Formats: sequence, structure tokens, C-alpha cells
Amino acid sequence: MNIITISREFGSGGRELGKRLADLLGYDYYDREIITTIAAQKGLDEGYVEKALENHAWQTIPLTFRHSFASANMMQQAQTDLLVAQKRVVEGIAKAGRSSVIVGRNADVLLADKKPFSIFVCAEMDAKIRRCMERAEKGENLSRREIENNIRRIDRSRAKNREMIANGKWRDCGTYHLTINTTDWSIKELAPAVAEFASRWFRR
Amino acid sequence: MNIITISREFGSGGRELGKRLADLLGYDYYDREIITTIAAQKGLDEGYVEKALENHAWQTIPLTFRHSFASANMMQQAQTDLLVAQKRVVEGIAKAGRSSVIVGRNADVLLADKKPFSIFVCAEMDAKIRRCMERAEKGENLSRREIENNIRRIDRSRAKNREMIANGKWRDCGTYHLTINTTDWSIKELAPAVAEFASRWFRR
Repeated sequence: MNIITISREFGSGGRELGKRLADLLGYDYYDREIITTIAAQKGLDEGYVEKALENHAWQTIPLTFRHSFASANMMQQAQTDLLVAQKRVVEGIAKAGRSSVIVGRNADVLLADKKPFSIFVCAEMDAKIRRCMERAEKGENLSRREIENNIRRIDRSRAKNREMIANGKWRDCGTYHLTINTTDWSIKELAPAVAEFASRWFRR
Repeated sequence: MNIITISREFGSGGRELGKRLADLLGYDYYDREIITTIAAQKGLDEGYVEKALENHAWQTIPLTFRHSFASANMMQQAQTDLLVAQKRVVEGIAKAGRSSVIVGRNADVLLADKKPFSIFVCAEMDAKIRRCMERAEKGENLSRREIENNIRRIDRSRAKNREMIANGKWRDCGTYHLTINTTDWSIKELAPAVAEFASRWFRR
């Protein structure tokens, strides 16, 4: 069983790379499925679970509530429950014993004992903004500045989430086996190169 | 003409990777040759040129001398001359028009207009110390602590040298096309994987 994990900057194309890698290698692919499973298990709304895990639940409640110690405490408890549920779902993927690509969720840390091949995907800000604009849904008319702010906000959350559970810092090249800058590639051309590289890693 | 540049943490195996890549791809290989050429051109000692370029000449002269404005000024001038000479030598390699692997010297920045494939090589500290110990010359009996201090000192110099001429930070994954952590590979197994990856980059 081979596991490839992908951490990524928002807008860098990490998710598309993961999907293509799974297709090329014939691996299972996990991304949103993890959120869906947690939401189903907990009987919670998928959007809430996603937001709570990405942004730290306690940051999303109004400041006035945070001043109430009991509420803050409850939110932290809910957050911890979700993190435990997430850990179990990711471990469950590995237990199934099938080769997989897992995008996000710090799966490389959660599955460290399974020796996954861990990839980090980054790109220059302009390239990330362009990608977000191309993928924007109809009617979504964010300015470049708004998109850039979103990217920075989401990446700050990802960095914090990683800090909570890992020793190495998010985005630090020493933390992953391979770090890929997608700025000058199309993901379609890049994916077979990464698939070959990862195959050699597992054969070594 | 394809150019691959390699920046690296001291002890990470970047030089060995560069040599093997050049062998596998049939490219020319440049590393110490650049220092040798500068030294010959300037009629200077090779060791001096290397130290001056890696450590900033002005840092290597005694503090008492640095207080003399004229001396400090002269040393800075000498440093600038060497940096200009280095730039010309690296540009000369590209002008020769042959596919090459260039290790160090911030060649990816100096040759940015030639669109090199830029690699950064890193490794965990323990792996770097082990590599340095294996490669130590006979009679060289540095402790682990001394080796670690050397690694940190040399890498600080490399970071500073890069800051002088580049926008992006040394070691920042957004600055290179590919960043490779050699901790869990032998360079011999890693090199063909990187050679394939780079070939796909140049064919894209």
C-alpha cells in the first residue's frame, strides 16, 4: 500500500495534481470525502465541519460570545472532537489498505507511521490569483485584491492547523519529501512527472 | 541548451546530486570550476576567492581593521569585483550554449533569462551531520556540535549571498521549481528520478 499526501497553498493546483496523480497511478483519491464522512458521522452540516476544521471554530463565533468562558470552552471542545474525528477518518483510509492520494488534513503527519510520500505544492501569488479567477463560479465577482486576501487568510489557517499537530512548519521544505512550484507548469504536464517520481520513491 | 541549477543546504547532498544528474543527462557540470576560473582570471588564491564569495570578505578581516573606513571600503570593493567576475563566468557558461548543471553561485538568478530549471536540495540536520561525518577527511575530528555549527554558519552565508542579488529568499520553496528533501533517499536512487523530472520540464 502506497500513500501520497498533498499539502498545498490555496490556488496552487494541489487538488488537481492530487486527482491526476490518483488517476495516473490507479490510486484511490481522498479530499472532500473526508469532510463528508465526518459530517455524516457527527450529524453535522458539511459546510460547518469544513469551516470549523479550516478556520478554528472559536475564531468564527462573534467576539461577544468568545468573552463568555463557557461558550469559548464549548467551541474548543467541539473543535477538538472534530480533529479527533478527522484523525480517525484519515487513519481509516490507511487501514483499508489501498494505495491512496490524500489531499489536505495534514495526512502526512496523521499517517507518519505509514511512511507516506509527502508533497507540498506552492505557486507564485499571481499564478494563484489567476487560477482562482479561472475557477470562480458564475456570479462570483471578487476583485484581485479580494482573491489575494482570501488566499492569504486560508493559508494562514492552514499554517496554524499544521502547527497544532506537527513539529515542522507548514510550507517549510524540510517538512515534506518533495515541494513543487506549479507557477510555470500546467498541472496536466506536471502530473506524469510527479507520478514517475513518486513511483521511484516507493520502489527505492 | 538546457540548464539545471542546484542550490543546497550544506551537507544535503546537492553537489553529489548535481554530478549524478550531469552524468545521467550527458550535461556539462560546473561547481568548483567556477571558483578556479575566477581565481585564475584575477591571479588570486582559490581558497581566498571561495572564502570571500561564501563568507563576505569584509566579515573575514579582523574587527580592528574593519574600523578603518579605508580598509573596509577596499574589502567591499574586492568583494564587488569578485561578484562581478562570478557573474561573468556563470554567464560565460551559458554563452557556450551547452546543456549544463551548475551547483551553487545563485546561478538560477544570474541566468534567469535562460530559464533554467532550478532545484533546491535540503535535508534534516541529523542527515546532514551524518553526511558530513562520512565525508570528513582523515585527521578531521570535528564533534557533532562543531559540524552542526559549521552547517548553520555556511547556510547563513548562503542565505545572505542570495539576499544580495535575488528577490526571493534562500530556501523558500516559492523561489525554486523543485525542492527535494534528501533525508530518506540515497542520492544514487534519487538522481534518476530527478533526471526524469527535469527532462519532462524541458520537454513541456
